[in-house]
Amino acid sequence: MTSAEATVSAYWTALEARDWEAVARLLADDVVYHLPQTRERIVGRESFLRFNQEYPDGWHLTVNRLVASGRRAATWITCAYRGEELAATSFFDLDDAGLVREITEFWPAAYEPPPGREHLADRY
Amino acid sequence: MTSAEATVSAYWTALEARDWEAVARLLADDVVYHLPQTRERIVGRESFLRFNQEYPDGWHLTVNRLVASGRRAATWITCAYRGEELAATSFFDLDDAGLVREITEFWPAAYEPPPGREHLADRY
Repeated sequence: MTSAEATVSAYWTALEARDWEAVARLLADDVVYHLPQTRERIVGRESFLRFNQEYPDGWHLTVNRLVASGRRAATWITCAYRGEELAATSFFDLDDAGLVREITEFWPAAYEPPPGREHLADRY
Repeated sequence: MTSAEATVSAYWTALEARDWEAVARLLADDVVYHLPQTRERIVGRESFLRFNQEYPDGWHLTVNRLVASGRRAATWITCAYRGEELAATSFFDLDDAGLVREITEFWPAAYEPPPGREHLADRY
Protein backbone atom coordinates (compact mmCIF):
# COMPACT_ATOMS: atom_id res chain seq x y z
CA MET A 1 0.00 0.00 0.00
CA THR A 2 1.40 3.39 -0.98
CA SER A 3 1.30 6.63 0.98
CA ALA A 4 -1.52 9.16 0.72
CA GLU A 5 0.98 11.50 -0.94
CA ALA A 6 1.82 8.97 -3.67
CA THR A 7 -1.83 8.02 -4.17
CA VAL A 8 -3.07 11.58 -4.51
CA SER A 9 -0.16 12.54 -6.75
CA ALA A 10 -1.00 9.54 -8.98
CA TYR A 11 -4.67 10.57 -8.95
CA TRP A 12 -3.93 14.00 -10.43
CA THR A 13 -1.49 12.54 -12.96
CA ALA A 14 -4.06 9.97 -14.10
CA LEU A 15 -6.84 12.57 -14.28
CA GLU A 16 -4.70 14.94 -16.36
CA ALA A 17 -3.82 11.99 -18.66
CA ARG A 18 -7.54 11.04 -18.97
CA ASP A 19 -6.29 7.57 -17.99
CA TRP A 20 -9.66 6.54 -16.60
CA GLU A 21 -8.54 3.01 -15.73
CA ALA A 22 -5.70 4.41 -13.66
CA VAL A 23 -8.06 6.85 -11.94
CA ALA A 24 -10.50 3.99 -11.24
CA ARG A 25 -7.78 1.87 -9.62
CA LEU A 26 -7.14 4.65 -7.08
CA LEU A 27 -10.78 5.03 -6.01
CA ALA A 28 -12.85 3.05 -3.52
CA ASP A 29 -16.02 1.54 -5.04
CA ASP A 30 -18.11 3.81 -2.85
CA VAL A 31 -16.05 6.98 -3.26
CA VAL A 32 -17.97 10.15 -2.40
CA TYR A 33 -17.15 13.44 -4.13
CA HIS A 34 -18.46 16.51 -2.29
CA LEU A 35 -18.78 19.93 -3.92
CA PRO A 36 -19.82 22.15 -1.01
CA GLN A 37 -20.23 25.29 -3.12
CA THR A 38 -23.06 23.75 -5.16
CA ARG A 39 -24.07 21.27 -2.47
CA GLU A 40 -23.58 18.47 -5.00
CA ARG A 41 -22.54 14.98 -3.97
CA ILE A 42 -21.51 12.28 -6.41
CA VAL A 43 -21.49 8.76 -5.02
CA GLY A 44 -19.67 5.76 -6.44
CA ARG A 45 -16.72 5.19 -8.73
CA GLU A 46 -18.76 4.91 -11.93
CA SER A 47 -20.61 8.18 -11.37
CA PHE A 48 -17.39 9.91 -10.43
CA LEU A 49 -15.67 8.74 -13.61
CA ARG A 50 -18.66 9.75 -15.76
CA PHE A 51 -18.74 13.17 -14.11
CA ASN A 52 -15.15 13.76 -15.20
CA GLN A 53 -15.50 12.10 -18.61
CA GLU A 54 -18.63 14.10 -19.46
CA TYR A 55 -17.17 17.42 -18.33
CA PRO A 56 -16.44 19.51 -21.47
CA ASP A 57 -12.80 18.76 -22.29
CA GLY A 58 -9.91 21.14 -22.78
CA TRP A 59 -8.84 21.36 -19.13
CA HIS A 60 -5.26 20.91 -17.97
CA LEU A 61 -4.31 20.41 -14.36
CA THR A 62 -1.13 21.42 -12.53
CA VAL A 63 -0.53 20.54 -8.89
CA ASN A 64 0.81 23.54 -6.95
CA ARG A 65 0.77 21.98 -3.52
CA LEU A 66 0.21 18.56 -2.01
CA VAL A 67 0.24 18.02 1.76
CA ALA A 68 -0.38 14.52 3.08
CA SER A 69 -0.29 12.77 6.41
CA GLY A 70 -1.60 9.34 7.36
CA ARG A 71 -4.79 8.69 5.40
CA ARG A 72 -5.40 12.33 4.54
CA ALA A 73 -4.18 14.75 1.93
CA ALA A 74 -4.93 18.23 0.63
CA THR A 75 -4.04 19.74 -2.72
CA TRP A 76 -4.15 23.10 -4.42
CA ILE A 77 -4.17 22.81 -8.19
CA THR A 78 -4.44 25.16 -11.14
CA CYS A 79 -6.83 24.21 -13.92
CA ALA A 80 -6.16 25.88 -17.28
CA TYR A 81 -9.47 25.95 -19.14
CA ARG A 82 -10.68 28.04 -22.06
CA GLY A 83 -7.99 30.68 -21.62
CA GLU A 84 -8.50 31.00 -17.88
CA GLU A 85 -6.55 29.74 -14.90
CA LEU A 86 -8.82 28.42 -12.19
CA ALA A 87 -7.75 27.28 -8.73
CA ALA A 88 -9.16 24.22 -7.02
CA THR A 89 -8.54 23.03 -3.47
CA SER A 90 -9.29 19.43 -2.52
CA PHE A 91 -9.30 17.42 0.68
CA PHE A 92 -8.87 13.65 0.41
CA ASP A 93 -9.70 10.81 2.78
CA LEU A 94 -8.28 7.40 2.01
CA ASP A 95 -9.71 4.13 3.28
CA ASP A 96 -7.82 1.37 5.09
CA ALA A 97 -6.75 -0.13 1.74
CA GLY A 98 -5.22 3.21 0.70
CA LEU A 99 -7.94 3.99 -1.85
CA VAL A 100 -9.57 7.40 -2.16
CA ARG A 101 -12.85 7.22 -0.21
CA GLU A 102 -13.88 10.89 0.00
CA ILE A 103 -12.96 14.05 -1.85
CA THR A 104 -14.22 17.47 -0.81
CA GLU A 105 -13.40 19.99 -3.49
CA PHE A 106 -13.69 23.76 -3.89
CA TRP A 107 -13.43 25.88 -7.03
CA PRO A 108 -12.93 29.44 -5.73
CA ALA A 109 -13.68 32.10 -8.35
CA ALA A 110 -11.93 35.44 -8.77
CA TYR A 111 -13.64 38.51 -7.36
CA GLU A 112 -12.92 42.17 -6.72
CA PRO A 113 -11.81 42.95 -3.16
CA PRO A 114 -14.13 45.01 -0.99
CA PRO A 115 -13.02 48.63 -0.52
CA GLY A 116 -11.22 49.75 2.61
CA ARG A 117 -8.14 47.56 2.73
CA GLU A 118 -6.01 49.14 0.01
CA HIS A 119 -3.68 50.49 2.72
CA LEU A 120 -2.78 46.94 3.73
CA ALA A 121 -2.80 44.96 0.48
CA ASP A 122 -0.86 45.09 -2.78
CA ARG A 123 -2.50 43.72 -5.93
CA TYR A 124 -0.64 41.32 -8.20
CA MET B 1 9.92 23.99 18.00
CA THR B 2 6.47 22.51 17.55
CA SER B 3 5.07 20.69 14.56
CA ALA B 4 3.30 22.41 11.69
CA GLU B 5 0.10 20.74 12.85
CA ALA B 6 0.39 22.21 16.36
CA THR B 7 1.39 25.64 15.05
CA VAL B 8 -1.46 25.91 12.57
CA SER B 9 -3.95 24.56 15.08
CA ALA B 10 -2.76 27.22 17.56
CA TYR B 11 -3.02 29.86 14.82
CA TRP B 12 -6.73 29.21 14.25
CA THR B 13 -7.40 29.03 17.99
CA ALA B 14 -5.66 32.36 18.57
CA LEU B 15 -7.43 34.01 15.62
CA GLU B 16 -10.85 32.83 16.82
CA ALA B 17 -9.98 34.14 20.31
CA ARG B 18 -8.85 37.52 18.84
CA ASP B 19 -5.72 36.88 20.88
CA TRP B 20 -3.57 39.08 18.66
CA GLU B 21 -0.44 38.62 20.73
CA ALA B 22 -0.73 34.86 20.40
CA VAL B 23 -1.32 35.18 16.65
CA ALA B 24 1.73 37.46 16.36
CA ARG B 25 3.95 34.95 18.16
CA LEU B 26 3.15 32.33 15.50
CA LEU B 27 4.01 34.55 12.53
CA ALA B 28 7.34 35.32 10.93
CA ASP B 29 8.14 39.08 10.78
CA ASP B 30 7.92 38.96 7.01
CA VAL B 31 4.86 36.72 6.73
CA VAL B 32 3.12 36.97 3.35
CA TYR B 33 -0.64 36.42 3.05
CA HIS B 34 -1.79 35.67 -0.49
CA LEU B 35 -5.42 35.96 -1.59
CA PRO B 36 -5.33 34.61 -5.15
CA GLN B 37 -9.01 35.29 -5.84
CA THR B 38 -8.56 39.05 -5.47
CA ARG B 39 -4.83 39.02 -6.29
CA GLU B 40 -4.19 40.73 -2.96
CA ARG B 41 -0.97 40.22 -1.05
CA ILE B 42 -0.40 41.43 2.48
CA VAL B 43 3.20 41.57 3.60
CA GLY B 44 4.49 41.67 7.16
CA ARG B 45 3.16 40.72 10.57
CA GLU B 46 1.82 44.17 11.44
CA SER B 47 -0.17 44.50 8.22
CA PHE B 48 -1.49 40.96 8.60
CA LEU B 49 -2.67 41.66 12.14
CA ARG B 50 -4.30 44.95 11.12
CA PHE B 51 -6.04 43.23 8.21
CA ASN B 52 -7.67 40.82 10.64
CA GLN B 53 -8.30 43.40 13.37
CA GLU B 54 -9.93 45.83 10.93
CA TYR B 55 -12.13 43.18 9.30
CA PRO B 56 -15.74 43.79 10.44
CA ASP B 57 -16.17 41.56 13.47
CA GLY B 58 -18.77 38.90 14.17
CA TRP B 59 -16.97 35.99 12.50
CA HIS B 60 -16.47 32.63 14.17
CA LEU B 61 -14.09 30.02 12.86
CA THR B 62 -14.28 26.23 13.08
CA VAL B 63 -11.53 23.99 11.74
CA ASN B 64 -12.98 21.09 9.74
CA ARG B 65 -9.72 19.64 8.52
CA LEU B 66 -6.03 20.13 9.16
CA VAL B 67 -3.39 18.18 7.23
CA ALA B 68 0.26 18.85 7.99
CA SER B 69 3.61 17.40 7.04
CA GLY B 70 7.09 18.79 7.59
CA ARG B 71 6.91 22.59 7.25
CA ARG B 72 3.60 22.61 5.40
CA ALA B 73 -0.03 22.44 6.33
CA ALA B 74 -3.46 22.85 4.76
CA THR B 75 -6.76 23.59 6.45
CA TRP B 76 -10.41 23.75 5.54
CA ILE B 77 -12.39 25.91 7.94
CA THR B 78 -15.95 27.14 8.26
CA CYS B 79 -16.46 30.81 9.03
CA ALA B 80 -19.88 31.68 10.49
CA TYR B 81 -20.54 35.32 9.61
CA ARG B 82 -23.72 37.36 9.48
CA GLY B 83 -25.97 34.31 9.37
CA GLU B 84 -23.96 32.57 6.67
CA GLU B 85 -21.49 29.71 6.74
CA LEU B 86 -18.51 30.38 4.52
CA ALA B 87 -15.74 27.93 3.72
CA ALA B 88 -12.08 28.88 3.54
CA THR B 89 -9.14 26.75 2.45
CA SER B 90 -5.62 27.75 3.42
CA PHE B 91 -2.13 26.53 2.62
CA PHE B 92 0.64 27.30 5.09
CA ASP B 93 4.42 27.37 4.75
CA LEU B 94 6.47 27.55 7.92
CA ASP B 95 10.03 28.82 8.12
CA ASP B 96 12.99 27.02 9.67
CA ALA B 97 12.07 28.42 13.10
CA GLY B 98 8.58 26.91 12.81
CA LEU B 99 6.86 30.27 12.29
CA VAL B 100 4.21 30.87 9.64
CA ARG B 101 5.97 32.46 6.66
CA GLU B 102 3.34 32.20 3.92
CA ILE B 103 -0.40 31.68 3.83
CA THR B 104 -2.31 31.24 0.59
CA GLU B 105 -6.02 31.41 1.28
CA PHE B 106 -9.21 30.90 -0.71
CA TRP B 107 -12.78 31.86 0.13
CA PRO B 108 -14.92 29.84 -2.29
CA ALA B 109 -18.46 31.19 -2.63
CA ALA B 110 -21.61 29.17 -3.19
CA TYR B 111 -23.00 28.97 -6.72
CA GLU B 112 -25.64 27.11 -8.68
CA PRO B 113 -24.34 24.08 -10.57
CA PRO B 114 -24.35 24.18 -14.36
CA PRO B 115 -27.12 22.13 -15.96
CA GLY B 116 -26.44 18.67 -17.40
CA ARG B 117 -25.10 16.72 -14.46
CA GLU B 118 -28.26 16.12 -12.45
CA HIS B 119 -28.10 12.42 -13.43
CA LEU B 120 -24.81 12.08 -11.56
CA ALA B 121 -25.14 14.38 -8.56
CA ASP B 122 -27.42 14.59 -5.54
CA ARG B 123 -27.94 17.98 -3.88
CA TYR B 124 -27.63 18.36 -0.13
